Amino acid sequence: MERKTLLTHCVDEPGLIAKITNICYKYQLNIIHNNEFVDNTCGHFFMRTELEGNFNDETLLDDLNHALPEGATYKLVDSCRKRIVIMVTKEAHCLGDILMKSFDGALDVEIAAVIGNYDRLQGLTERFDIPYHCVSHEGLEREEHEQQMTEIIDQYQPDYIVLAKYMRVLTPDFVEKYHHRIINIHHSFLPAFIGAKPYQQAYQRGVKIIGATAHFVTNDLDEGPIIKQDVIPVDHTFSASDMAQAGRDVEKNVLSKALNKVLDDHVFVHGNKTVIL
Amino acid sequence: MERKTLLTHCVDEPGLIAKITNICYKYQLNIIHNNEFVDNTCGHFFMRTELEGNFNDETLLDDLNHALPEGATYKLVDSCRKRIVIMVTKEAHCLGDILMKSFDGALDVEIAAVIGNYDRLQGLTERFDIPYHCVSHEGLEREEHEQQMTEIIDQYQPDYIVLAKYMRVLTPDFVEKYHHRIINIHHSFLPAFIGAKPYQQAYQRGVKIIGATAHFVTNDLDEGPIIKQDVIPVDHTFSASDMAQAGRDVEKNVLSKALNKVLDDHVFVHGNKTVIL
Amino acid sequence: MERKTLLTHCVDEPGLIAKITNICYKYQLNIIHNNEFVDNTCGHFFMRTELEGNFNDETLLDDLNHALPEGATYKLVDSCRKRIVIMVTKEAHCLGDILMKSFDGALDVEIAAVIGNYDRLQGLTERFDIPYHCVSHEGLEREEHEQQMTEIIDQYQPDYIVLAKYMRVLTPDFVEKYHHRIINIHHSFLPAFIGAKPYQQAYQRGVKIIGATAHFVTNDLDEGPIIKQDVIPVDHTFSASDMAQAGRDVEKNVLSKALNKVLDDHVFVHGNKTVIL
Amino acid sequence: MERKTLLTHCVDEPGLIAKITNICYKYQLNIIHNNEFVDNTCGHFFMRTELEGNFNDETLLDDLNHALPEGATYKLVDSCRKRIVIMVTKEAHCLGDILMKSFDGALDVEIAAVIGNYDRLQGLTERFDIPYHCVSHEGLEREEHEQQMTEIIDQYQPDYIVLAKYMRVLTPDFVEKYHHRIINIHHSFLPAFIGAKPYQQAYQRGVKIIGATAHFVTNDLDEGPIIKQDVIPVDHTFSASDMAQAGRDVEKNVLSKALNKVLDDHVFVHGNKTVIL
Repeated sequence: MERKTLLTHCVDEPGLIAKITNICYKYQLNIIHNNEFVDNTCGHFFMRTELEGNFNDETLLDDLNHALPEGATYKLVDSCRKRIVIMVTKEAHCLGDILMKSFDGALDVEIAAVIGNYDRLQGLTERFDIPYHCVSHEGLEREEHEQQMTEIIDQYQPDYIVLAKYMRVLTPDFVEKYHHRIINIHHSFLPAFIGAKPYQQAYQRGVKIIGATAHFVTNDLDEGPIIKQDVIPVDHTFSASDMAQAGRDVEKNVLSKALNKVLDDHVFVHGNKTVIL
Repeated sequence: MERKTLLTHCVDEPGLIAKITNICYKYQLNIIHNNEFVDNTCGHFFMRTELEGNFNDETLLDDLNHALPEGATYKLVDSCRKRIVIMVTKEAHCLGDILMKSFDGALDVEIAAVIGNYDRLQGLTERFDIPYHCVSHEGLEREEHEQQMTEIIDQYQPDYIVLAKYMRVLTPDFVEKYHHRIINIHHSFLPAFIGAKPYQQAYQRGVKIIGATAHFVTNDLDEGPIIKQDVIPVDHTFSASDMAQAGRDVEKNVLSKALNKVLDDHVFVHGNKTVIL
Repeated sequence: MERKTLLTHCVDEPGLIAKITNICYKYQLNIIHNNEFVDNTCGHFFMRTELEGNFNDETLLDDLNHALPEGATYKLVDSCRKRIVIMVTKEAHCLGDILMKSFDGALDVEIAAVIGNYDRLQGLTERFDIPYHCVSHEGLEREEHEQQMTEIIDQYQPDYIVLAKYMRVLTPDFVEKYHHRIINIHHSFLPAFIGAKPYQQAYQRGVKIIGATAHFVTNDLDEGPIIKQDVIPVDHTFSASDMAQAGRDVEKNVLSKALNKVLDDHVFVHGNKTVIL
Repeated sequence: MERKTLLTHCVDEPGLIAKITNICYKYQLNIIHNNEFVDNTCGHFFMRTELEGNFNDETLLDDLNHALPEGATYKLVDSCRKRIVIMVTKEAHCLGDILMKSFDGALDVEIAAVIGNYDRLQGLTERFDIPYHCVSHEGLEREEHEQQMTEIIDQYQPDYIVLAKYMRVLTPDFVEKYHHRIINIHHSFLPAFIGAKPYQQAYQRGVKIIGATAHFVTNDLDEGPIIKQDVIPVDHTFSASDMAQAGRDVEKNVLSKALNKVLDDHVFVHGNKTVIL
């Protein structure tokens, strides 16, 4: 017996749950978990169904195709460990956290490789017997640099690319090639601080919380569908550098929580929002 | 068009979601929200379905009766504001919080009456134009006292009874009469402190968190199915009395969060546990 | 024996704690609590000293004047219950929370009066036997309107003015008159949403947390020294209206936590930041 | 210029802060941070003073000896990185978290060695170039086993011993030898579950939060002075095994927060409680 997850979303109409679960029943697939959500504002239906049984993907998907309204999106995903490639620059905290959580079982993922535009994190990565590719951006056009990284990424065929404090802007082509498969983490503040040295600005403003946002990377003006956000309290005793350390703590926690949801196929992207079932 | 919530739980078997949603579809009931959970350990199925349409309760429930496995529990609940009776002793914080949240719309509930075994909270209750019944326990056997309260409760026909720091033990008869309809709040500590003056004990032990647990009242040896728990941090600067104030804060927050779930028909009781959909 | 709190801040220099505590010792004042902070970035010293004994304020302050560096700020504050005037518009949640917490002892404050530019919250206020003044802004210039409110405020001689969702912009004159004595609460988002209908924007953006910020009101471009911030998690099941309700929950919690700190003389304002000892 | 931290605690009496800070001033030591607490219930005074300057430890401590009441405890601690030895059994999560946080700078500590009664964590430890000593308990009396470990520990002269899920009970002799220098982490539940398989019990009870407690190890009947506690929410979808994973998450977070406080000399032990300044 296999386990797969059926992810369906489409325009809402009456009877969708019955139609989908009838099809599962017809193929004698047991529903392990089922979650469903209707966004009543935009009239859109989302359903995540964990199934167990003997799958004939083709006929199942064909039946769904006939049953669901036009324009429906549906896919049957293997409930196995996903494969990721991690991209980094110089900061160790997010990479280290993913490496250790993967090692001790808190994060169920296969880290195929780490790509960095510096070599600083090579030693850390290789301690965990994971290949590290240093692809320096120096002297290269952005497209050339990304081309070199793309070639490496594609030889690993990852399900997702995780930007674990990769500090360079990606081109629209790169983003489009891995559509809704690139996950990023960045700091967030209340109020927002635009421009350089955000922690210095946060310090000068005397904020009492510092946050982080994990999101899919898109080419939208703002930052793509948000997967997870959280904050950490700070106070007047925090220097700008202490605030940056607090920021690193919340960044790695938010990123690994977002990854847990994405890697277990809980996250739908709809427009610029996520639905997490 | 009406709104009702269908609550179903039974032994798990394949096809249950399809069967239930097919019946809803047959009666042209639109599913607004649907949540489902299977406890794989004990093989039990739970489903909460918010429906909109024109209901013929009798035939719908009859169809369910035929479709579901033997021993299934199912009910169709009006999605309207629930009615509660609150029981108190002397402490104002939980009662005051419910009164104010009901007043400002944060808690959608009809408070039919407040019953206290002292008159201390009469003034507070009546400020909100809610009847207060003082039923002193003095000079009465426990059964007599409860009999007097039961008569008052029953004239209001409440959906639930909320013990908002009602400090007397209830008899098994009283608990049985309002089976799974009595909600209580009590403090909880790590480690647990048995006996008198728990905050004094917590202070002497130097705990760093203080908690509260909202639960249904049962006659089990321990404290009935848990609905909600939370904690509040404390530190060495807290006196025993400061800890008690922190305890009051967390108690009222946990109780009102539990009420929100119960009053909106999200809570199933199964054995000594809750499933909250 | 009386209790007073000495609040001192000045340019940092060696020996300040010794000088201040020596003076307290000289007057046989017992130090109940002492907290001190040096902002090493700007070289500024802050100290909060809770004292018990028989006070001769004049000579004590005179001694401090001689001991402390030029430009030092120091005051001796009675450790008694502070008096506030609350300003409101139409929303009940923050006013109701302060009224109830004052009633049940969670907030130690004397609410002298409530002023609203509508009469909607008059009934709620008067249930707690507190005078309500309706000062409509209709047909009045902003200065005239504030003049009418100022006259009412001044007859109560409040220590602080609490804007509990008072929704009109205050003039620089009003802000200046009650310098660092006006406390405001407002929603905050990650990212920030400028302009009308922020909860609608937050909903459309799919944020996962909603926050609130309590701050002193100033005429600075941004929002004055922050006292307290916190957030509440939301998810895709929240409509814009559910997000607004979540926002009200976090607003009232943040405001009452900020008030607890301010009313107990824990908060220093320095530049556009607070130091909370 | 050096940095040291002066930790003082004694019976409370008037003028203690003045006396101590006067002595610091006399030796031209600049006070970087100062925190003080008086436990009014037991009349005990605690003060932590971070100092900068040129130290003559002997004369400074001699002056303190004359100034402070009889029985006072005071020590001058180098504000340098502390050295720890970590003891483990088989579980990786706490060890891994400390190794990684030390590596990326989130935890400022020198990990001198790891001692395990199995060899399972040897590979992980050695990836970070830290010596691992496997000291099997099999076939040994408890005293013999501890004797072997003590010899290893003592050759590293650690400031603290961290039990990162070391699963064997320590003898009173071992505990006494490293008095208030052994830090342990263990799970905690509301309510408490005594006996084997606590997560199975927590699952069966349907708890909604799972906690962890970091504490100093003592020979008291209960578990020694608590340094830090926290909880993580769980719900009905968590199996016993998911709850155990949630427990591991909160354990490692609580342990590393406790270590941060202990290693930076913020923690006083008084009786069976901690004061954290």
